Amino acid sequence: MSLTTHSMVTPSGAVIASAAQRELTDTEVFGAHMRGKMSIASTVPMDTMDDLSRAYTPGVARVCTAIAHDPSAFASYTWAARAVAVVTDGTAVLGLGNIGPRAAMPVMEGKAILFKRFANIDAVPICLDTTDVDEIVDTVARLAPSFGGINLEDISAPRCFEVERKLSQRLDIPVFHDDQHGTAIVTLAALRNACLVTDRTLAALRVVIFGAGAAGVAIANILTDVGVSDVVLVDSRGVLHPSRLDLSPVKAELASRTNVSGIRGSIADALAGADALIGVSGGQIPTDAVAKMAPGGFIFAMANPNPEVAPEVAHQYAAVVATGRSDYPNQINNVLAFPGVFKGAFDAGAREITPAMKLAAASALADVAADVRSAERILPSALDPRVVPAVSAAVSAAA
Amino acid sequence: MSLTTHSMVTPSGAVIASAAQRELTDTEVFGAHMRGKMSIASTVPMDTMDDLSRAYTPGVARVCTAIAHDPSAFASYTWAARAVAVVTDGTAVLGLGNIGPRAAMPVMEGKAILFKRFANIDAVPICLDTTDVDEIVDTVARLAPSFGGINLEDISAPRCFEVERKLSQRLDIPVFHDDQHGTAIVTLAALRNACLVTDRTLAALRVVIFGAGAAGVAIANILTDVGVSDVVLVDSRGVLHPSRLDLSPVKAELASRTNVSGIRGSIADALAGADALIGVSGGQIPTDAVAKMAPGGFIFAMANPNPEVAPEVAHQYAAVVATGRSDYPNQINNVLAFPGVFKGAFDAGAREITPAMKLAAASALADVAADVRSAERILPSALDPRVVPAVSAAVSAAA
Repeated sequence: MSLTTHSMVTPSGAVIASAAQRELTDTEVFGAHMRGKMSIASTVPMDTMDDLSRAYTPGVARVCTAIAHDPSAFASYTWAARAVAVVTDGTAVLGLGNIGPRAAMPVMEGKAILFKRFANIDAVPICLDTTDVDEIVDTVARLAPSFGGINLEDISAPRCFEVERKLSQRLDIPVFHDDQHGTAIVTLAALRNACLVTDRTLAALRVVIFGAGAAGVAIANILTDVGVSDVVLVDSRGVLHPSRLDLSPVKAELASRTNVSGIRGSIADALAGADALIGVSGGQIPTDAVAKMAPGGFIFAMANPNPEVAPEVAHQYAAVVATGRSDYPNQINNVLAFPGVFKGAFDAGAREITPAMKLAAASALADVAADVRSAERILPSALDPRVVPAVSAAVSAAA
Repeated sequence: MSLTTHSMVTPSGAVIASAAQRELTDTEVFGAHMRGKMSIASTVPMDTMDDLSRAYTPGVARVCTAIAHDPSAFASYTWAARAVAVVTDGTAVLGLGNIGPRAAMPVMEGKAILFKRFANIDAVPICLDTTDVDEIVDTVARLAPSFGGINLEDISAPRCFEVERKLSQRLDIPVFHDDQHGTAIVTLAALRNACLVTDRTLAALRVVIFGAGAAGVAIANILTDVGVSDVVLVDSRGVLHPSRLDLSPVKAELASRTNVSGIRGSIADALAGADALIGVSGGQIPTDAVAKMAPGGFIFAMANPNPEVAPEVAHQYAAVVATGRSDYPNQINNVLAFPGVFKGAFDAGAREITPAMKLAAASALADVAADVRSAERILPSALDPRVVPAVSAAVSAAA
């Protein structure tokens, strides 16, 4: 096992002697995945004929009959009402792209056990052998009676927007595309706390979002929802503005109500004078573009495993730096959001996850970090046991 | 808790002081089902950031990439390759009929935990919100990458035959309709041992199958496969014969190659002189019809909870009596088959469950009872720990 030590100097001069980063060996990574990472457990004894009579036939017939007569009994007497389907088509898996449903399975299993670990929610990975929007929607709608919620995962944009919209309309259980809303919730919480530690206000920020896929779109939406008036999106072809003819409907709609200054051009043009850079692209940003930002701002370079701006570089031009990695300070990690969001929705019996619930989740998450808040601690640790109770209570109250 | 004691006198004069049958109370049945009967468990630790790095990001990306490059790695590094989807549309649940997907869930959860308890196979209940054959087939085919096998359950005839046929053609993983083949395997094993304890041969039996749904059709097929030459099926309208114009294609095909004596009429006409009655109907058979059977035969009255012939009556006219109930001797219970069948198929890497594998399962199951075989013990107990190893080894060898 090789060890690499990262250390870096922040603008305030503090040396962050970050935890020695262990480079994982193939042996330990593949060993942890051998035969998968999850299993089914029975929650009732099955050791005697009496046990079988109670939990299976003949006893089970009474429970089925009760549900047939009173559908509300479904929630009381099945696992399904609080089980989540983690659904993907394998088209946008991590930074790996369209690797197909089977190669996506390890990520979906990981998500399922994160649900269990952090919110005691039972989740089942469902990897679909279709990339057609209507086939995905039909398939998920037909298996929906088996679950209490649908977590969409790693479905590429712009299809992910349509899949989520159609499923939300068709189903009366929560549907949540984590790559959009989980990322947006955690980013908003991080941005709030970054403002607090630098004595700024969200509304006054000029924010550049580099990447206009699922995460970029959702972040732009949640920021405009909370009153950030100057948001500029940049995709691989440059700044989004209403005159561009190459935009998808979702991007065109966003272009029509963002970029109030009418910026055109590249990421460098967008970053000139910007207060915050949010990278959700998977790409890289040249140092000379970053250097044009207003002083004392924020850089959230969330691409994994290679941030859009190396943290060591980012610290030269920003007061607060965050990444998506667990081996640097300020990790922006969706696991801070989705377990509590679903737990809160289930606790409240919510049939959808509304914008108000997402905003409540972001506020609660930001507040959990109150006692440790600093430029190097704008978010709680993914392992902080206070996170899920706080987020779920806020989501439940907002439902 | 009320207790009822059953006792009965067999033709050989032995009094079967059956175990006192506990009438289950609603409190214990519904208590056992509170919040469902199953949960997800993580099989890897998730307590430190290192754990998360191995099992989730960034480590998981290496495993996804490995599967994308070599699809055979899917079996090694996911749970899915050995997970079973227990799929229903809720149209033929137990004896309750078409109660819908949500009311069917407790049975499917029960099946899932039986898979776990008896074969250590992870199974997930999937209850579908459609009863259309092609929609069921499309849905299951699209979610198939998430599983290593499909167990169809409680889908009404004749749609169940078409669903199974189309899915078997379309998928390269085992597809098994338990109501058909599980029942047929266990029934054949019971019939074999009933022959052994009464010094008869299978081939020489005249067998009447009362009920021509999923189970009746599959039992007729497996019996003709093993050379039982005289099989007569009876449905709710009477004996199946080639001149009947009201038969579904599946029944018509069976009518064309069974009923060698050309019997017409009712169950009473079919039973005159018959050696074996197999009830899989949910209906009742009058005592005077049963009385016409040849002496010393077999009555398997498998309807639950009310056998087609009360065991006390059946014993007056048959040498071997079996039911589907756990509170009488000779329970014919599918749990003796499906766990071992799937385990054997998985162990062998089989892509389908062939007739040879089903016959091997029946033989192995019959053999497990060799040391206790008697008219009151034609099958091993559902809890006999030798069953699954024996059945799975036989199925695997036949694959």
